[in-house]
Amino acid sequence: MGDAIITLTTDFGNESPYVAAMKGVILGINPSARLVDLSHLIPPQDLRYTAWFLAASIPYFAPEVIHVIVVDPGVGTDRALLYVEANPHRLLVPDNGCWTVLGRALAQPPKVIRLTEGQYWRHPVSATFHGRDILAPAAAHLSLGLTPEELGPATTDWIRLETPTPTFGPDSIVGEVVFVDRFGNLMTNIPGEALSRLPPPLQFKVGNQAVTRRVRTYAEAEPETPVALVSSEGMLEIAVTAGNAARRLQAGIGSRVEARLVPGD
Amino acid sequence: MGDAIITLTTDFGNESPYVAAMKGVILGINPSARLVDLSHLIPPQDLRYTAWFLAASIPYFAPEVIHVIVVDPGVGTDRALLYVEANPHRLLVPDNGCWTVLGRALAQPPKVIRLTEGQYWRHPVSATFHGRDILAPAAAHLSLGLTPEELGPATTDWIRLETPTPTFGPDSIVGEVVFVDRFGNLMTNIPGEALSRLPPPLQFKVGNQAVTRRVRTYAEAEPETPVALVSSEGMLEIAVTAGNAARRLQAGIGSRVEARLVPGD
Amino acid sequence: MGDAIITLTTDFGNESPYVAAMKGVILGINPSARLVDLSHLIPPQDLRYTAWFLAASIPYFAPEVIHVIVVDPGVGTDRALLYVEANPHRLLVPDNGCWTVLGRALAQPPKVIRLTEGQYWRHPVSATFHGRDILAPAAAHLSLGLTPEELGPATTDWIRLETPTPTFGPDSIVGEVVFVDRFGNLMTNIPGEALSRLPPPLQFKVGNQAVTRRVRTYAEAEPETPVALVSSEGMLEIAVTAGNAARRLQAGIGSRVEARLVPGD
Repeated sequence: MGDAIITLTTDFGNESPYVAAMKGVILGINPSARLVDLSHLIPPQDLRYTAWFLAASIPYFAPEVIHVIVVDPGVGTDRALLYVEANPHRLLVPDNGCWTVLGRALAQPPKVIRLTEGQYWRHPVSATFHGRDILAPAAAHLSLGLTPEELGPATTDWIRLETPTPTFGPDSIVGEVVFVDRFGNLMTNIPGEALSRLPPPLQFKVGNQAVTRRVRTYAEAEPETPVALVSSEGMLEIAVTAGNAARRLQAGIGSRVEARLVPGD
Repeated sequence: MGDAIITLTTDFGNESPYVAAMKGVILGINPSARLVDLSHLIPPQDLRYTAWFLAASIPYFAPEVIHVIVVDPGVGTDRALLYVEANPHRLLVPDNGCWTVLGRALAQPPKVIRLTEGQYWRHPVSATFHGRDILAPAAAHLSLGLTPEELGPATTDWIRLETPTPTFGPDSIVGEVVFVDRFGNLMTNIPGEALSRLPPPLQFKVGNQAVTRRVRTYAEAEPETPVALVSSEGMLEIAVTAGNAARRLQAGIGSRVEARLVPGD
Repeated sequence: MGDAIITLTTDFGNESPYVAAMKGVILGINPSARLVDLSHLIPPQDLRYTAWFLAASIPYFAPEVIHVIVVDPGVGTDRALLYVEANPHRLLVPDNGCWTVLGRALAQPPKVIRLTEGQYWRHPVSATFHGRDILAPAAAHLSLGLTPEELGPATTDWIRLETPTPTFGPDSIVGEVVFVDRFGNLMTNIPGEALSRLPPPLQFKVGNQAVTRRVRTYAEAEPETPVALVSSEGMLEIAVTAGNAARRLQAGIGSRVEARLVPGD
């Protein structure tokens, strides 16, 4: 066993001193904590992106890792700050629903605690940076072995984030692009296993553009051909081998994506 | 106690191998050192930004942490390289004044040592990368327990960086924007406590644009309204709730910011 | 001795969850592994840039460090994945040649192993993310002390990457720009020691633009003057003191660079 691991995910960018301040606060309380940056380039205050990012990264970590997420459009309102144990990961997060996607497939409901015990906070608590003043010190104290229940009372009341879900018809599934990666690959919200319940062959569209080729991996397609495949996360992905699908298909986050039975087949 | 912590702050960007080389040098000397990235996106050779960044991040760390700062427009001149203990933080930094803001409110003067002892450097020492060849190895040796005095002679002669300070009049304070964060919030060099010495209400201007609303936290204002508040760093901040103050007020680093008594009140 | 160190170099960018997923996989297998980010901003699928980046960073690390490199245009083809011990560094890398520059000056040939032993992989192995499913877990197992030979069979067959080499004439050397750093400095593929074999003085050209001044360090030149110097990596570098050589000389990666005897001297 190594020292406790704390990951950081924020929308602060890498130019600002905000992430540095959080790191200082955590290491000031637990100098043995090992910090792991996940991303500080979440688009500012974008909860849907955060939800998607967490779903695509947190499950790869062991349950004992502590994850601090600071995407907090409600800072300064009376929104709560939460400790969450979900599926079975441990998060410290503002109560804005960005984490609830992690609890979806859960055998037992998540344990959620409202952070109310000020002795585990940094004082004075600012009105605009609760990541530094509440979430970071709470994470550090947990990493030292504090029982979560010491942080405040359990609650069953929290914000659920509605994220767009695909529409399943008898001969089609309609979803949307939720992420465009650095290679221009389009990640959608359509599960790969849903595709496999429609009888092949399928045809695909991104916006008005047809994607006729379906492959298992990029390498099966000719360069510059748009293809549909199941992503490394198990979701429908649209890619262009040796090219950029987002540019080629003029698509981005929110673009409509359709999978449909080939008529007559 | 964990292993020694060394933080890195540079203007190298994240594309280059320069940061990687420094990490290799440090870990080659002390494989147990724990590296913490603060930022590598300091604007190239921008000492004022560096000063502001350090003031907004270093104070959150425990005194035993070692901070390596490589923003070094004078590399290759005869400018000195320094070990500094200030207020009470420990820095390795070129002698360009970017750190002196940390010593301002100091009870006792900072301890400053000129790095002259070549046995603690990487050889051959290049003419253009002293961060890798002098600062990084010095930090690694300190993290192993080397006494700072072994690095060279003490000095009381170092560069002070002049940073713009606000002008305090009987019924106004005039300062400027020193940082624009990723949300478009404008951070100024006007201390929040200075505002509280003027009798309310106050009115604010950024350039020629009036900011009439003063709040304690973003959430108190209507969306899209420019507001004045005290930042999480204790300074006057101009923000637009659910919007971008920099874009809305067409302001950036250096923009004039004024706080003034409301006439007749 | 500290815990095992694993570095990460990818072309994934910092917005995506791909790096985070790899970190989770590594720490899930070896919670004591210490992760060091080198860069995630390698230009997408750019093997030449990767080769240059590795040559300029890996040599600074101690031999026991494990380096995971994920720049993988061939993912999903039958290209191999490799464990490499070269000169004397330890890498996990797709078989695309990006590492072979590290083996050039080698006293003994590199040890290269093909990763075939699936018990050290993450399952199910995706078709599109072998960095997460094969390289990351292999690195974690190695960091726990696994003998490299357990990962698969040795091979002497691997891809060599051709990188552009300078042309050496009797009175000139012609090379090219291989990297432009954040300050606009132009790094070339012309070794500084090759320059010293031509009798001075030399004149330099970037594209059609003359660079007449040669210096040892930036500080020797007047501001705004283009100068030639030997970089901190020992290569010909073209810089503009207190300015930006890339902008001033309208040069970028691939620009022609020439060093030539001054006629008549």
